[in-house]
Amino acid sequence: MSQPLRLGIAGLGTVGVGVVRIIRQHAELLTARSGRDISISAVSARSKNKDRGIPLDAYAWEDDPVALATRDDVDVFVELMGGSDGPAKAATEAALAAGKHVITANKALLALHGQALAEQAEAANLSLRYEAAVAGGIPVVKALTEGLAANEITRVMGVMNGSCNYILTRMEDSGLNYQDIFAEADGLGYLEADPQLDVGGIDAAHKLAILASIAFGTRVNFDAIDLEGIERVSIEDITAAADMGYKIKLLGVAQMTGRGLEQRMQPCLVPASSPLGQLQGGTNMVVLEGHAVEQVVLRGPGAGEGPTASAVMADVMDIARGFALPVFGQPAHTLKDAKHATSVLPAPYYLRMGLVDKPGALAKITTVLGDAGVSIDRMRQYGHAQTSAPVLIVTHKATRADIDAAIAAMEGTGVLTSAPVALRIEEV
Amino acid sequence: MSQPLRLGIAGLGTVGVGVVRIIRQHAELLTARSGRDISISAVSARSKNKDRGIPLDAYAWEDDPVALATRDDVDVFVELMGGSDGPAKAATEAALAAGKHVITANKALLALHGQALAEQAEAANLSLRYEAAVAGGIPVVKALTEGLAANEITRVMGVMNGSCNYILTRMEDSGLNYQDIFAEADGLGYLEADPQLDVGGIDAAHKLAILASIAFGTRVNFDAIDLEGIERVSIEDITAAADMGYKIKLLGVAQMTGRGLEQRMQPCLVPASSPLGQLQGGTNMVVLEGHAVEQVVLRGPGAGEGPTASAVMADVMDIARGFALPVFGQPAHTLKDAKHATSVLPAPYYLRMGLVDKPGALAKITTVLGDAGVSIDRMRQYGHAQTSAPVLIVTHKATRADIDAAIAAMEGTGVLTSAPVALRIEEV
Repeated sequence: MSQPLRLGIAGLGTVGVGVVRIIRQHAELLTARSGRDISISAVSARSKNKDRGIPLDAYAWEDDPVALATRDDVDVFVELMGGSDGPAKAATEAALAAGKHVITANKALLALHGQALAEQAEAANLSLRYEAAVAGGIPVVKALTEGLAANEITRVMGVMNGSCNYILTRMEDSGLNYQDIFAEADGLGYLEADPQLDVGGIDAAHKLAILASIAFGTRVNFDAIDLEGIERVSIEDITAAADMGYKIKLLGVAQMTGRGLEQRMQPCLVPASSPLGQLQGGTNMVVLEGHAVEQVVLRGPGAGEGPTASAVMADVMDIARGFALPVFGQPAHTLKDAKHATSVLPAPYYLRMGLVDKPGALAKITTVLGDAGVSIDRMRQYGHAQTSAPVLIVTHKATRADIDAAIAAMEGTGVLTSAPVALRIEEV
Repeated sequence: MSQPLRLGIAGLGTVGVGVVRIIRQHAELLTARSGRDISISAVSARSKNKDRGIPLDAYAWEDDPVALATRDDVDVFVELMGGSDGPAKAATEAALAAGKHVITANKALLALHGQALAEQAEAANLSLRYEAAVAGGIPVVKALTEGLAANEITRVMGVMNGSCNYILTRMEDSGLNYQDIFAEADGLGYLEADPQLDVGGIDAAHKLAILASIAFGTRVNFDAIDLEGIERVSIEDITAAADMGYKIKLLGVAQMTGRGLEQRMQPCLVPASSPLGQLQGGTNMVVLEGHAVEQVVLRGPGAGEGPTASAVMADVMDIARGFALPVFGQPAHTLKDAKHATSVLPAPYYLRMGLVDKPGALAKITTVLGDAGVSIDRMRQYGHAQTSAPVLIVTHKATRADIDAAIAAMEGTGVLTSAPVALRIEEV
């Protein structure tokens, strides 16, 4: 039997407590599977005396995560504090500098500083692992870096923020509007302290940026993501989409195009009958497409004590087993700076608008669309054709630029009673 | 850069050709990700001169797979011949004896001889890997042995034979009976040379036996599986199940109970709205449940050149990266002989029977069920209550023994016009 693998855990929130619990309650299982005892040397958190429901007396306490990260009796620094800068970054850098492996659940840290941290870790032959940073309990980082390692990845796609999916599915189920359900989710504690991280799509975009780097061998580039949150998704659109056989999801898509890497995180329509369309509540789903494997879909809990701790512990087990691989699946110095492509790939679009109650209004809109090169696949007008009831249009494939041009032209017609909503329909 | 990792590939059917194709066409990608060149030293198959659509001249040819497996210029023997005994077993044993790692897609070999092969491999510190043996392109072996390694697994479940799922979904879509769709699938080349391996559930049961061993730390025990194929699934049952909100799937379930390990591979009803219920055609799905992660669902192609080759190559990449772990996730000598439990866990059951056109017939059946301790959740009788139209019953939870006792008693009532069908309803 090898020496125990000794952890130092910084951050004792839900996930940290979950990790401690697994190590305390399933020690024998962990040892049987990894060939080593897994132990905790020391822990760190903001408040020492808070009751966390688990005994922590057996572990040394450090107020300072940097001190924890560099202790002699720590082999692996487990960073569960969060935040892209500040203590999380300082302690991670200090751990790597001190020759410790690092496991983190911190998507913001990796999305913003992943390249530098990966270079630091790899130069020192250390592991920097982050299964828990993407899609909670779903072992998607492993699936992409290892399970599909022989695939040229063609597309990565997913619903990776459970709070947003909860809000969107609750809106549909209840018929209530965004503001009401946002308040409900906030009251239930489903949102981050800064809810903009969730509903603004930022948290999900951090995850997408990480997966895109692995998938395409490119440097993580969060700033290049076309980012739109769910704050402007209306109950009218959810209802209208459902009526036409679609669901609205906050969908992340990363895809290599002839003009560069396209990364989008935005509300999209997906077929209601597709696996993504059927995803309810806080569950996450990631779709991985590769030249050989075609399509693999992974579904599981995106957050929570057990699932996230399960992902952290998978990284612990891999380190205990001696598995080492580059942070983003190939050496960081070989990752390319991807050309940033925005909305290169055409798609069908969903358009919703209100028209004035005048003869010929609809004809003006269809003419404008035709002039912009956007052809109509399906159209519905609710109520009598000459009222101001909403018009729904599903277009054939068009680029975002064509759609934007068409909308600008529509606004010049004088027949709109509300600004058109345009949402991409993703082929899944 | 390390030395190349040199493969010897035995079997050049669909999967073997797929593996050669990936190595030829994506060499640079494989090297970037694994840190080593992947090369093919030699190949072997039944017929040397068959045109397989790829050039093989660069590789040495061996008629004898044992000779291939033991060549000095082979580091990894890739066994893609199939068959639980004969050349596949002989060559695998020879490869391990000669100090070669082995990768196989051969579920029968592992389900029947996995324990002995694992002990041989581990005694020699060699890898014996088999991602492609279970659920085609889905990286489920990796998810279970590594991604969920810190979980006490509570249940493993899945649809793992695409041909059976194709037949069942085609029956439902077409309304045609089993014999017609079986002939269609056979004509399309969807079935094994011995179709009993597919429709008898044997192939799927091989896969379940392997997953159960990993999940529960038990010696692979194919013979302990409660096995029933799809040959007796009637279009009447598919239609009736659909009418009550269910689909019929050939579902494998492995679960540790207080009385031992229960392994079942049998046609079951699952809710039509569940991910398993929605699975169409040849796609596979595996559901993994663990104490921490709750539930992870993996979905992907269960067969085919690209997907299966993708799984074989994932094992190649892991070996190239130097990852080594015990064959079934913990050392083979520590795997326990699980007590074999049959149908310990109660479940609701679906019952279908025809009754004679006589007053009181239905009352006799419900009385018999009540006497056997089986209570009725829902019941439907089609047509007039006093005709011989079928009666459908969904029971509350009951054990298989109670259901069997109730059926035996029903048969003594003299009111049946057809033998009752009983199918378990799995809670998914």
